[in-house]
Amino acid sequence: MAGELELYQFFKEGEKKFQPGLSIDSVIFGFHDNQLKVLLTKLKGMELWSVAGGFVYKHEHVDAAAIRILKERTGLSDIFLQQFYVFGDPNRSDKKFHVKRMKETGWKFSRDHWLLKRFITVGYYALVEFSHVEPSTDSMSDSCDWYDIHELPRLIMDHEQILKKALEVLRIQLKYQPIGYNLLPQKFTMPELQKLYETILDKKLDRRNFQRKVLGYNILKRLDKRREGGAHKAPFLYSFDLRKYHQALKEGLHGGW
Amino acid sequence: MAGELELYQFFKEGEKKFQPGLSIDSVIFGFHDNQLKVLLTKLKGMELWSVAGGFVYKHEHVDAAAIRILKERTGLSDIFLQQFYVFGDPNRSDKKFHVKRMKETGWKFSRDHWLLKRFITVGYYALVEFSHVEPSTDSMSDSCDWYDIHELPRLIMDHEQILKKALEVLRIQLKYQPIGYNLLPQKFTMPELQKLYETILDKKLDRRNFQRKVLGYNILKRLDKRREGGAHKAPFLYSFDLRKYHQALKEGLHGGW
Repeated sequence: MAGELELYQFFKEGEKKFQPGLSIDSVIFGFHDNQLKVLLTKLKGMELWSVAGGFVYKHEHVDAAAIRILKERTGLSDIFLQQFYVFGDPNRSDKKFHVKRMKETGWKFSRDHWLLKRFITVGYYALVEFSHVEPSTDSMSDSCDWYDIHELPRLIMDHEQILKKALEVLRIQLKYQPIGYNLLPQKFTMPELQKLYETILDKKLDRRNFQRKVLGYNILKRLDKRREGGAHKAPFLYSFDLRKYHQALKEGLHGGW
Repeated sequence: MAGELELYQFFKEGEKKFQPGLSIDSVIFGFHDNQLKVLLTKLKGMELWSVAGGFVYKHEHVDAAAIRILKERTGLSDIFLQQFYVFGDPNRSDKKFHVKRMKETGWKFSRDHWLLKRFITVGYYALVEFSHVEPSTDSMSDSCDWYDIHELPRLIMDHEQILKKALEVLRIQLKYQPIGYNLLPQKFTMPELQKLYETILDKKLDRRNFQRKVLGYNILKRLDKRREGGAHKAPFLYSFDLRKYHQALKEGLHGGW
């Protein structure tokens, strides 16, 4: 999707195409092999990175725009994607990089150009199996890669705050929403599920408490098989009861009020 | 704040003053005497009601706008007010009532008037002690009153959906956030706290389970006193440990992961 011409068109026609003053920023968390990472794009010609952002077409549902942007950036659809916060600080928009890009492109911008006005952004987050993702750039970026959440590069504007808030909400949501479908293999062991929680929470959990609690959610099916090829005391295999899992996504986990 | 002149100014100057295409809709829940109600305004001259809505000034933080609108409508400040969802359906805006109002006011509107464009709304909810509220109308409404959530009048646009979603989120948030401060007297009994939860959830809870769970959150202080003037078996009094309460608001309730 790269190209100066395309960017020129975007500066010129964006005002007609997009809902004014509104953007989307999606924090795409990736899980694989007990690691948690985040997908960031590097802005072309700058040492600045951003989460997966975009705009909303004038006749497009805001949630549909978030799904479209996620698909453009990762190749994935049918992903758990959740609104988590609206970032509405009037001073959050720092337009230096837009101005720089416009100058480079030869676009004769004025201070009241649509892209230099105030933008409010709707934050979404997704959690994906990162080995399934094909990261892809757009006309504003020259790379798109996974970064360890403990070793972030320099992020534009308030994107570090957006990322931290997403992680905070994700961790709190473990208290009331199920997690794991699409991230774990179809059949998994209790230690594998525990590792997923530990990776997201960035802390060790007690084995017995974890098992008691997660079984209490009533979203797991214990299979008759144990993990094959293991020792005598091989762990039981589980899978999600998808009907109950989706009900719990909607209504909150069992074991609440 | 009523008056045709004021409304005329609003139609004329709103585009210069407000962030385009963005509104706020706050669902104000009121609790008193074990009843849960919602604050609705009636649109002037129509049999249509709405939740507490408004717009965001161009240099105003979105959250600050929500606080301002809550104060205008209820007289209250320093209230627990929470973003809960962005309503971004491109077809959510039904502008019939704006058109009607403009015609009545004598405003020569055109189809591309700012108020007739697509609006995305940020939903907030607040939970207040309703005996403390002084409901107040604006230039678009002719009454502002409490309604039982089971007996709602006819709501404009998607406001019924907004209200239902707010209630759904509020109920799920009982699973991970503390509640009760500002709603209960400073000292309260366990049955009084249980009643608050039962009223919001609209169901009976088991007394022993409730007590065990809510004490496990570690946000309550049991006082040395019992409820005065009662029988021999008068219930203990509790109050919130505000430091722990606010920490739990931020980080989620104890007893999760």
